[in-house]
Order: sequence, then C-alpha cells, then structure tokens
Amino acid sequence: MKTFQSLLVLNSLPVCSPLPGVSSATPTEEMNGAGNLMDFLDEPFPDVGTYEDFHTIDWLREKSRDTDRHRKITSKSKESFWELIKSLLDAWSGWVVMLLIGLLSGTLAGVIDLAVDWMTDLKEGVCLSAFWYSHEQCCWTSNETTFDDRDKCPQWQKWAELMTGHAEGAGAYVLNYFLYVLWALLFSFLAVSLVRVFAPYACGSGIPEIKTILSGFIIRGYLGKWTLLIKTVTLVLAVSSGLSLGKEGPLVHVACCCGNLFCSLFSKYSKNEGKRREVLSAAAAAGVSVAFGAPIGGVLFSLEEVSYYFPLKTLWRSFFAALVAAFTLRSINPFGNSRLVLFYVEYHTPWYMAELVPFILLGVFGGLWGTLFIRANIAWCRRRKTTQLGKYPVLEVIAVTGITAVLAFPNPYTRRSTSELISELFNDCGALESSQLCDYINNPNMSRPVDDIPDRPAGPGVYNALWQLALALVFKIVITIFTFGMKIPSGLFIPSMAVGAIAGRIVGIAVEQMAYHHHDWIIFKNWCRPGADCVTPGLYAMVGAAACLGGVTRMTVSLVVIMFELTGGLEYIVPLMAAAVTSKWVADAFGKEGIYESHIQLNGYPYLDVRDEFTHRTLATDVMRPRRNDPPLAVLTQDTTTVEDVEALIKDTDYNGFPVVVSRESERLIGFVQRRDLTLAIKTARQKQDGVVSSSVVYFTEDAPQLPASNPQPLKLRRILNLSPFTVTDHTPMETVVDIFRKLGLRQCLVTRSGRLLGIITKKDVLRHMAQMMNQDPESIMFN
Amino acid sequence: MKTFQSLLVLNSLPVCSPLPGVSSATPTEEMNGAGNLMDFLDEPFPDVGTYEDFHTIDWLREKSRDTDRHRKITSKSKESFWELIKSLLDAWSGWVVMLLIGLLSGTLAGVIDLAVDWMTDLKEGVCLSAFWYSHEQCCWTSNETTFDDRDKCPQWQKWAELMTGHAEGAGAYVLNYFLYVLWALLFSFLAVSLVRVFAPYACGSGIPEIKTILSGFIIRGYLGKWTLLIKTVTLVLAVSSGLSLGKEGPLVHVACCCGNLFCSLFSKYSKNEGKRREVLSAAAAAGVSVAFGAPIGGVLFSLEEVSYYFPLKTLWRSFFAALVAAFTLRSINPFGNSRLVLFYVEYHTPWYMAELVPFILLGVFGGLWGTLFIRANIAWCRRRKTTQLGKYPVLEVIAVTGITAVLAFPNPYTRRSTSELISELFNDCGALESSQLCDYINNPNMSRPVDDIPDRPAGPGVYNALWQLALALVFKIVITIFTFGMKIPSGLFIPSMAVGAIAGRIVGIAVEQMAYHHHDWIIFKNWCRPGADCVTPGLYAMVGAAACLGGVTRMTVSLVVIMFELTGGLEYIVPLMAAAVTSKWVADAFGKEGIYESHIQLNGYPYLDVRDEFTHRTLATDVMRPRRNDPPLAVLTQDTTTVEDVEALIKDTDYNGFPVVVSRESERLIGFVQRRDLTLAIKTARQKQDGVVSSSVVYFTEDAPQLPASNPQPLKLRRILNLSPFTVTDHTPMETVVDIFRKLGLRQCLVTRSGRLLGIITKKDVLRHMAQMMNQDPESIMFN
Repeated sequence: MKTFQSLLVLNSLPVCSPLPGVSSATPTEEMNGAGNLMDFLDEPFPDVGTYEDFHTIDWLREKSRDTDRHRKITSKSKESFWELIKSLLDAWSGWVVMLLIGLLSGTLAGVIDLAVDWMTDLKEGVCLSAFWYSHEQCCWTSNETTFDDRDKCPQWQKWAELMTGHAEGAGAYVLNYFLYVLWALLFSFLAVSLVRVFAPYACGSGIPEIKTILSGFIIRGYLGKWTLLIKTVTLVLAVSSGLSLGKEGPLVHVACCCGNLFCSLFSKYSKNEGKRREVLSAAAAAGVSVAFGAPIGGVLFSLEEVSYYFPLKTLWRSFFAALVAAFTLRSINPFGNSRLVLFYVEYHTPWYMAELVPFILLGVFGGLWGTLFIRANIAWCRRRKTTQLGKYPVLEVIAVTGITAVLAFPNPYTRRSTSELISELFNDCGALESSQLCDYINNPNMSRPVDDIPDRPAGPGVYNALWQLALALVFKIVITIFTFGMKIPSGLFIPSMAVGAIAGRIVGIAVEQMAYHHHDWIIFKNWCRPGADCVTPGLYAMVGAAACLGGVTRMTVSLVVIMFELTGGLEYIVPLMAAAVTSKWVADAFGKEGIYESHIQLNGYPYLDVRDEFTHRTLATDVMRPRRNDPPLAVLTQDTTTVEDVEALIKDTDYNGFPVVVSRESERLIGFVQRRDLTLAIKTARQKQDGVVSSSVVYFTEDAPQLPASNPQPLKLRRILNLSPFTVTDHTPMETVVDIFRKLGLRQCLVTRSGRLLGIITKKDVLRHMAQMMNQDPESIMFN
Repeated sequence: MKTFQSLLVLNSLPVCSPLPGVSSATPTEEMNGAGNLMDFLDEPFPDVGTYEDFHTIDWLREKSRDTDRHRKITSKSKESFWELIKSLLDAWSGWVVMLLIGLLSGTLAGVIDLAVDWMTDLKEGVCLSAFWYSHEQCCWTSNETTFDDRDKCPQWQKWAELMTGHAEGAGAYVLNYFLYVLWALLFSFLAVSLVRVFAPYACGSGIPEIKTILSGFIIRGYLGKWTLLIKTVTLVLAVSSGLSLGKEGPLVHVACCCGNLFCSLFSKYSKNEGKRREVLSAAAAAGVSVAFGAPIGGVLFSLEEVSYYFPLKTLWRSFFAALVAAFTLRSINPFGNSRLVLFYVEYHTPWYMAELVPFILLGVFGGLWGTLFIRANIAWCRRRKTTQLGKYPVLEVIAVTGITAVLAFPNPYTRRSTSELISELFNDCGALESSQLCDYINNPNMSRPVDDIPDRPAGPGVYNALWQLALALVFKIVITIFTFGMKIPSGLFIPSMAVGAIAGRIVGIAVEQMAYHHHDWIIFKNWCRPGADCVTPGLYAMVGAAACLGGVTRMTVSLVVIMFELTGGLEYIVPLMAAAVTSKWVADAFGKEGIYESHIQLNGYPYLDVRDEFTHRTLATDVMRPRRNDPPLAVLTQDTTTVEDVEALIKDTDYNGFPVVVSRESERLIGFVQRRDLTLAIKTARQKQDGVVSSSVVYFTEDAPQLPASNPQPLKLRRILNLSPFTVTDHTPMETVVDIFRKLGLRQCLVTRSGRLLGIITKKDVLRHMAQMMNQDPESIMFN
C-alpha cells in the first residue's frame, strides 16, 4: 500500500539483510526482487486465503479460519472411527510439534557448542591423538596431566610447535599469531560467503525480524530450510572466528526455523499464519532455553520480548518445548560439566546491603553502555546503508575480523572465546583455581574449607589481569559496535555480557581490596571483619553482565530469571534486580527503544509495539484516508458497479481491498472485499462463467438486482464479501484505535459517522501517525 | 441489567459469602442489601465516572481516562518545578505501591505463620518458660534437650501434665484429647463469629472473587480494610483449629486487600478501576510469593490463573512486589530455617526413566482426585445454598470442626498441622531423621556419607506409618470436601497437596521396597543395584502433591515453577511436569473447569474466561437484543426526544445505557449515553438550569435544533454522549464478538447492518449465550 511504501522509503533499506523489495515501489517488483532467494523454491505459490510477501496478516480472520477447521474436524470425528483417530491426532499435533522443536533445537545447540569449541581451539593448535578433539577434550583423555597444568598436555600442540618443533620463543609466537589471524579470516570469509550465496536472511541476530514476523508480518523464506542450514553452519564459523559476537540471538532464529520446518508437517499450522505464529513463539522460548540453559527464562523471554500474541495455551506449550530442548542439550552435555552453559556458577557467600551501592553503579554503567551501543550501532548501520560501505559486505567482514584477530591475540582475555572469558569472570576464586585472576597472596597460617576462603590481598597476577581486562573492556566496547549488523550471524548477548562482566569484575576486585585494606572504614566495619569472605568479585561480574544486557535489550523479568537460573539461588536476585532496574531506567532516560526495536525502526518493518503507549489526543478522523484534499475513497457499490469498473479500479489503485457500500449517495457500508479475492474471482468468472463480459454488473447482495433484459448476465460476488468489516466512528480517540489494532491484530479498519462510510485506517496509517506524533511536541498536537 | 439478573437468578445465591444483592431484583435493593457491611463506610458515594456495585467496568474508558490524566500531568509538569516534582511522584507511585504491598503482605504472612505455629501447639500444651513460644521455639531455648528427643523438653508441658501432673496414662490421653477438641472448637467458633459479624466477605479462599474483580467486576468492600483485618485474624484461627484447610488462597486475598488499601493513597489508582486492577494483579503475585516462597511462581500464577488484563509493565512490577514480599518474609524467618516455607526440600539423588510410570500414575490419581473433589464440593455447596443447611453457618463450622478434631487426634499424621505433615512427607530420610517414616533397618556394616544412604528394608515403624497414612488419606479426602466453602477463610492448596503427598509417599515407599527386594526384576536391573540409593520416597510425595494440586486448580506452568522453586533444582522438573500434565489431562476429560471456575459459575459471577474457546457458528444477530418478539430497542433520538420522554424511558427500563440515533426512521447511530450520566445530567439541569421543563427537547447535536419559538428552552447533552460506541455488524461471527469483548474489556457493543442500528449485545448477553451453547449439542446449534 502507498502509505507503507512512503513509510519505508523514509526509512530506506534494512541493515543487515536487505529484505528484497521492502523499499521497492510496487508489489510486482517485490515479488521479483525476492526471486533470487533459494527458500522461495519451497514456498507454494500464493493462493486465495494466503498472503503476499511483505504483507500483514489478519489475525481475526486466521483465528476464525482455524475455528472453522476445528469445527469441521469435530463434526466429522463422529462419523467414523478413522475420523476420530484423525481428530485426536490433530488435537495432539501441537504437542508433537513442540517435542520435535525441542529435540531438534536442543540437538543443534549441542552440535553448535561442540563445533564452536573445536574450531575456536583450532585457531591455536590441534589435538594429535584425534584432530576432532577440542583442547579440553584432548587433554581429558591424557593421563599424564594434572588439573593444574591441563593446558600443557603433550597431545595438544600449538601450530608453531607442530610445524617448527619449538613451542617457545619469538618465532613461535609470531607463527601462532599469524595462523590465529589466518584461521579467523578463513572462518569469517567462509561464513560471509555462505550467507551471501545461499541465504541472505541468515545474517544478523534475527530477533528484530522474528519480532516483526510474530506481530503478523509475512517475510517469506526468513524461516526456511536453507536459512536454517546456512545459519547453523555460518553461526559456528562466525563464533569460531573470534569476532565479538554471540550465538544466543541466532540460536533463537535457528529454533524458529525448526519451528517453521515442523509446522509444514501439519496442515493445521502450515496453512494458518496465526497458528504458525503460536508455534514460533514457543520455538523462540526453546531457543533461549538452550542458549542460556534457562527454560523458565526462555519462556518469559518469549513472552516479554519476542511474542505478540501469546495465549495461555502457548505458555504451557512453550514451557514444554523449552524443557525438552534443555534436556536434549543436557544429554549431549557439550561442556562436560552436566550444565547447559559454560558460565553456570554457584556462589557460597551472601551479599551485604552496603554492596548495593556498587551494584547500582554497575547498573548505571550498563544503562550508559546500552545507550552508547544502540546509538553508535544504529548510526554505523545507517551509514553502512547510505554510503558505499554497504556494497562490500564481504570486505567489511574480512576487515573487521582482521582487526579483531590482530588486536585480540596479544591479550589472553580477548584471545580465548567470549563464553570462556565470561565463565572465568563469573567464577569465584576457589582454592584450586589456577587462573591469573585468582592470584591472591595466601596467608599460610590460615586453613579453611575449600569454598569459604577469606578475603586476601591481591597478588601481582591480579594487578596484571586488571590491566589486561581494562584493555579488553575498551576493545570489546568499540569492536562490538562495528560487528553487530554485519552480514554474518551475530548475537549481542554474549558481547554485552562480556563488557558488563569485565567492568563488574574490575569493580568487584576494587571493592574486595578496599574492604581488605580498610576494615576499619565505617562502611565495611559492620559486615567485613578481617578474615571474613565478604566480597565475591564473581558476583559483581554477573551483576555487571546483567546490567549491560539489560541496557542493550531492555529485558527485565526474563533477564533476572535467566540470571537466576544461571546462579541457582534466590539469594542473588536482589542485586541482579537492582542492577537491571537501574540500567533500564538510565537507558530509558536517553531513549525508550532497545536494540531490537531500534533495528526494527531502522529497517522500517511495520511493527506495532505493544509497549509503546500512545498518549496523544488525536481522533480517528485525523488519521483516516482520504485526507482533506485527496480524491474520494475508492469504493464499490453493492449492485451498480460493472466488471469493467472493477477492473479499472484494480488497475488504477494499489489498495489491498475496497469497501462496498449500498450506493454512492447513501454511503452505507455493507462490507469489505480483498483486492486479491476480487482479482481472482473476476478472472475465474471471465474464464469459466458464460455471459460474464466487461459490462456485466457485479453485485454483492443476496438477490440479483432488477436489470433490463438487454443487460448481460450479472456476476454475484457475495461469497468473497467480508460482511463483518471492523468499523470505528470518526470521533474515536486514536489511543483506542491503536489499542484495537494491537489487541485484535487488524490490517485495516473503516471509519464511519452516523452510519456513513467516511474513510479507512490501515495498520500502516497507524504506524505512520505514531511516528509523526513521536517527533512532534505533544503540546502542538493537542491544540491543532 | 435484566439479562444479568436473569442469569444470576438461574444460578441462585453464591456459596460462601452471600454477596448482598447479587441475586436481588433492582439496583436499589442491591445498595440497601450491602448496607450492613462495615466496609461500605469507607467507600465514597458513587459519582459520575464511577461504577455501581455489582456492575462491570468499561476497560477502554478507564484506559482513556488514565491517558487523559497522564496527559494533563505531563503538560502541567512544564509549568513549574513543583508540578515537575508532582509528575515525578506520580510516575513513581506505582513502584511505591508495589514496595508497600510487598512489605505489608510479607509482614502479615510472617505474623500469620508465627501465630498459627503458636496456636496450633496451644491445642496440645503450653510453654512454661514463655507462654507465647510454640513447641519448637520453647525447646530451642532449652539447653538440656538433644536433637533426637526435642519433643520432650521439660519447658513444654502438655495440658494433662500441667493440670494433673501425669504425662502418661489413659487419663492424661483423654484429658489431652478433650482439650484438643475444645481448643479447636473455640478457635473455629471465634473465626466464624468474627466473619459473620464484621466481614462476611472474609470467608472462603477469595480467589474466585478476585478473578472476577480482576476481570472488571465491582464488588465493593470485598478488598476493604475490615476484610483485611478480619481475614487475617480469622485465617489464623481457622488454620489453628486444625480444620482441613490452608492459608495459601486466603493469603492471596489478604495481599489483594493490602493492594487495594495502598491504592487509596494515590488518586492515580484509587480513581481508576483499570489501574487499580493492575495493582491487584501484582498483589496477587505477592500473595502467592509469600504463601509458597516462590516469587517467580507467584508472578506466573497471577499471570496464568488470576489476572485478566496483564500488560508487560505489570509483569515487572508484580515481580518486584513478589520479591519484596519474599524478602520481608525471609527476614522475619518464621520457621527458623531461613526458608520461606516449611516444606522446602533438597534432594540429592537423581530419578530414573522407569520411575516415570509411577509418576504418571500419581498424575492420574491427581486428576481423579481433582474431578472427585470439584464435583463433590460443588454438589455440597449447591445443597448448602438450596436447603436449610445454609442458614446455620456457625453450627456447620462447629460441627465440622468437632468431627475433624475428634477424628484427627488419634492419628499422629492428622493431629499435627497439615504443613508439618507435608514437610515430613516431602523429606528425604537422612541419617539423623527420627521420624517413624524413616524407621528403616540399617545395615551396621555399611558406612556412607550422610546424604547418600542406600535403599534399606523398611522397619516396623514404616509399616505402621503406612497404615496411619492410608487412614489419614481417606480422612483428608472426605473432610476437605465438606470444609471448603464454609463461612471461614479456607484455602485448598494445602489440603490438596496433603492428599497428594500422602498418596505419593505411600507409592514411593512401595516402589522403594519393591526395588530393594527385587533387584533382579528387569525394570530395576538397570538402575537399582543393591546398595544404591535409587528411590527417593519424598520426591514421590512432592510429585503427588503437584498432581493433586494440578487436578483441583488446573494450574500448569505456575504449578511446576512453584514446585521447582520449592526443590531448587531443574533436575526434578520432568517428573513434576509429567504428573502435572497427566493430572490436567485426566481431570479435563471429566470437565474443563477448575475449582475456581466452578465456584465462579456456581455464584453466577459475570466472568468471561480467557481460556474458554468459543467455537460455535452463531452470529451477532443471534445474540443481540431485542429478540424477534421483543419490543423494539429503547433508543433516544438526537434532537426530538423531550425531558419527559427520557425520564419515562429511565423509569420504564433498567438498561445501563441507551443508543442515540439520528431519527427513528433512519436508525443511523450517532452515539451511546450511560443511564447514570443521563439521570444525573437531567437532575442537575432541572435544579440549576432555568427554563428546563418536562417538555424541553433534549438534543445531542452540536447546534440546537430549529424549534418553534413557543417551545421551552432545549437541553444540550452532547457532553455526556459517547461519540465512539463500539459497533459490529449483524453478520459478525460470535467468536469474533467474544474475542472483542475479552480483549477490549467491553461492557456492551451495538449491532448495525448497513449503517442502521439493529440491537445491542452486553457482556451478560455474551455470557448467557456461551452458557447456552455449552449445554447444547454443537451440532444442533450449527444447523438451526
């Protein structure tokens, strides 16, 4: 529709994947533009009752179609035993789909984890006993190694050692460095090439697009088989290349592709866009469940962040899918720790009220980081779209990978994979910990249980680590801004968490050392006596991670619940919540939108956010078309329009549908007819029905109109007329109209005054109006 | 409205608390009938913009009023610094209310726990060192007692010992028995009397009414201060009396009363019924949070089970309130175990796939119990309402208490409080456990860590316990049916869980002993070698409890999450989920409604369940009034009706409002006017406006109609006209209409055909139609 296009032209091209045709001028071009996508081969040709690509679905109609289908099956089920079985199968198909989604997405997550593990280590060396082992697996099988120096087992050889025989020295270092960069470039080149050639939709995190799809938009092929395959493969490559990106967001996309795949097994879901979206919501929950090992958090994420229409039945099924996925992943056990994620931790010491101050400061940091990241990333993405830069996606990926790898190698905290870094930062320093971060000076006289080590002064290793972490922090902050949005699968949960975890750990160590050296300060006096284990720097890292993730995504409940499932204790909810709330408030003060909403807006998707409150005092009459100086609304009359007229109307306009009125004089509305259905009906009638010619009258009433005998045979089209179009009066406040569009998922709504048809409001009119209102001073709108 | 009353007359009186006037014939009587409630003193006299008692609110109007208020504050905030402060306070008031709710409901829950503990023990004896100590607290302070025989510390004396000096013997037993029954009768008499005299609304669990209120119904005084006070006090009395009831449901009611109380502090909430309901939803979450020590479960319970309109903002605030409540309760620490509930457990052994069979059997048991309980309880409640029985509520409570106490005392498992029983059943038998249920025959040669004791043969104590448990099971099943619905605060979470826990523990012990004695059976061979700790009877008890609770309430996700928070491990989610799913399916096969929905229906509340799917093929025209042979719809014309006519219309009908049309001939709708507003406007005009007499014309247009000079001054009422009434066409399928009513929270909807007003559908028409459809064969409706 015109409005939609004008809206999109304003916003120009999408960031990561130029959705074919979203910005083009006519529907025909849209369809052609999408022709080069592999996934289009799978999709049936659009037919009556289906929707065109890049169009909005009609939720009410989908729902009503499903009820019809259900009614038919129920009434048939009484006819024979076989029909009864079929109706039972139909009733159970929802659960079957959930089970399959859980199994497949759990398996894929496990495979991705294993592959990433192996390929990340491949950048540094290879396992001699079995090349398909990662560093850790390689050294597990070795008997000669102890826990302390498990990094140096003989089976695992760095590239330099393998090639030159020298493990140490400047030459070996340079060779390792060179090969590290080379592998990284190779992986990322492969990733971006695969995405370019086979599945352009596989890039990015996918969450903005999934949100848009779930809100009722059609993007054909976005959740197709090819996208699934390519996204899975390239995700492994992208993460292994050491770029500053995570697998969490793309895993949600992968899970949704699984959902879509299994939908096609059951006509109940494949033929109904509304029901399909219920499955996709559940699939998103399964995706987060395996990404974080948090089934409840996943369901809440799907509910809070991703889904649009979420009936209670879906809640229960999502939970089931999320659990199946989690247990599938656990039985694969990719990390060998019986946990679903690398960074699961358990803390043993409580936190104290005074610690809320640093926690809240971390929240402020998270909010600022969120704001900075969103603004900088959106600005960069906009620049990519509008300048020459966007034309060389492969080169861009290669360049960013090169810079990342060159800068990352020298610093041990950036060289390793980001999940491992987060895992180390979250960890509490136990007695057996050999990491540099745990290099505290032990008091030899003190013997204590393993998990309750008192605060100790930091050793040189800790100070060293602090410097390296500070550098890593700056590096991560800068590089992530340029990485998110490139043409490879890229999630930002992990980089955001890494930024927060580094900042948190630094703050945590600072507080710990302050408490150790200044027991007598008033703030420490009450809770931190000498010899007590009062500060857990790992907890600070976790709080920081939550704050930064919250600042970027604006998640709240689901964030806290995910973190809660990562720590496994109610104990630490308050710090996490304090940080999440602060971070959200600070970030909201600079702009209401999270990263996903910003990308949705940047790409110009027609997404009606459930959370935006529309508080302006405009009326339906201010938004409806035709506007004051426009030509009158294109309508059909119930029994005076001819086939010719209709064809002319279809040719001259590009509206999705036309209201039908009693007569042009009375303007009494009787129904609404879809452009698509009208075109098809006339085409069919012309071919198959004798006597239907250009001058035949088209009628929508029950009985044929009284016509002179000389007239050609009239054409009855009541069948395709929607007799219950949605109407509001011209005095209806726009906030009510927005509410109706959101809650009922309408595509359009007709405007009447005392029974006369005045105009039409489409979803895009609503979106455009909302965008206008946002940019204006509310005062000026209130009185104009 | 007529329809509503006819609906209610069918259903007759509510069960537990005869809501004054719900069944009466006119609004006047309704108001009078409610006059004897203390809480009515607090409520302001209903005014313009408020609703009458037992009427439905208009969600869209409430929302739009709140937006107006918000807009006003925002525009004012730019005027002065003081206004800015006020607008910030307004923005924060939601969080303040949540904090207060959390603090108060947490405190009340703690006080209730402590008081119940003390009073329950008071039935058996008293602490000599300090009479306000419970048995456990009394013996804590004693130094002479060891863990093993903590029951027999010298400070704690049973009544017989205190009075006669003899602790043992038949005489002492009889005296203790007699005093136990006497105390129980005293407590329950006090409880029922307080409820009768001060707050009739304090009885029952309150959840059905809260569901109804949250769906947009007004029950004045149901959440008032008196109800709060009396419900808290009588809840302690009722639980202490040893009746088979729990405090969990009533705690939700208490928390909602707190929510309502704090709403009155802020005009934002007290003056807007929609906003008030957001707060109440959060309060319900806080209530469950303290009842089960499960903040996340509480939020999900509120979302899944109780709430109607649950925007995402509410999710976050509910979570905050639930957490504050949980931490307040934990800082009170009523059970001295740093846990929020008595029956928190941690298991140490995993479960095996083969165990899913007994778990699913427990699910079947739970479903059957749910069906039995709901049917029997509803039948009994209906009998109470329709026969003489209902007239003697005090006598009924006394009789049931007497029977309960007399039967409960001889059996140690029914004598103690139900929470303690559940706690013991859930517990895994550790090495130090002294309970009869843990009387296993130990192998003296085996020494193992404390928390990993292998399966052992059961000793005589266990067999003895099994018999007593079986008797307790029968007793609990029967007595709970008669207890729930009496005129005292009574929840059914705890009795349901007790039934399930007993059944589960019995099954668990059976499986354990089978596995011990038949290691060689195929089913045990793979996972239960001799000397292994393979069966945890406590887990069976928990699974049984979940199954029974699920069967009665039909909770799903929230149930599993609550249980998950009680065990603190993802490990046991699968058994719990298997049981919950089975139980729900089994129970659903016998009837779709849970106990709360059944009670809502029994009481005839106008509750439109979000979960009922309306799948019939009726149209709006089949439901709207006037019906075929009814008098025509009562309408007003825009400029020809006189004051007299309006007054006559108001007198002759009892509709809540009237459509306004252009003229009776054209029937073009221009708006809708509320009866209440019309009455008030005419009354005011008659008093204050000169020249308004009975023959004055009332007009709703912008400009006064052209009238002969002789006519009296016309009265302009456009101000009270709703210019955006909701309309549907007569061809709209009822499923769409039901959807619209649910999602937009409408009170009524007008029906038009090609711009002409045909009739009206109210919420009660929808409910009545749905009830009719339920009771008919869908086939007969489809084709008539």
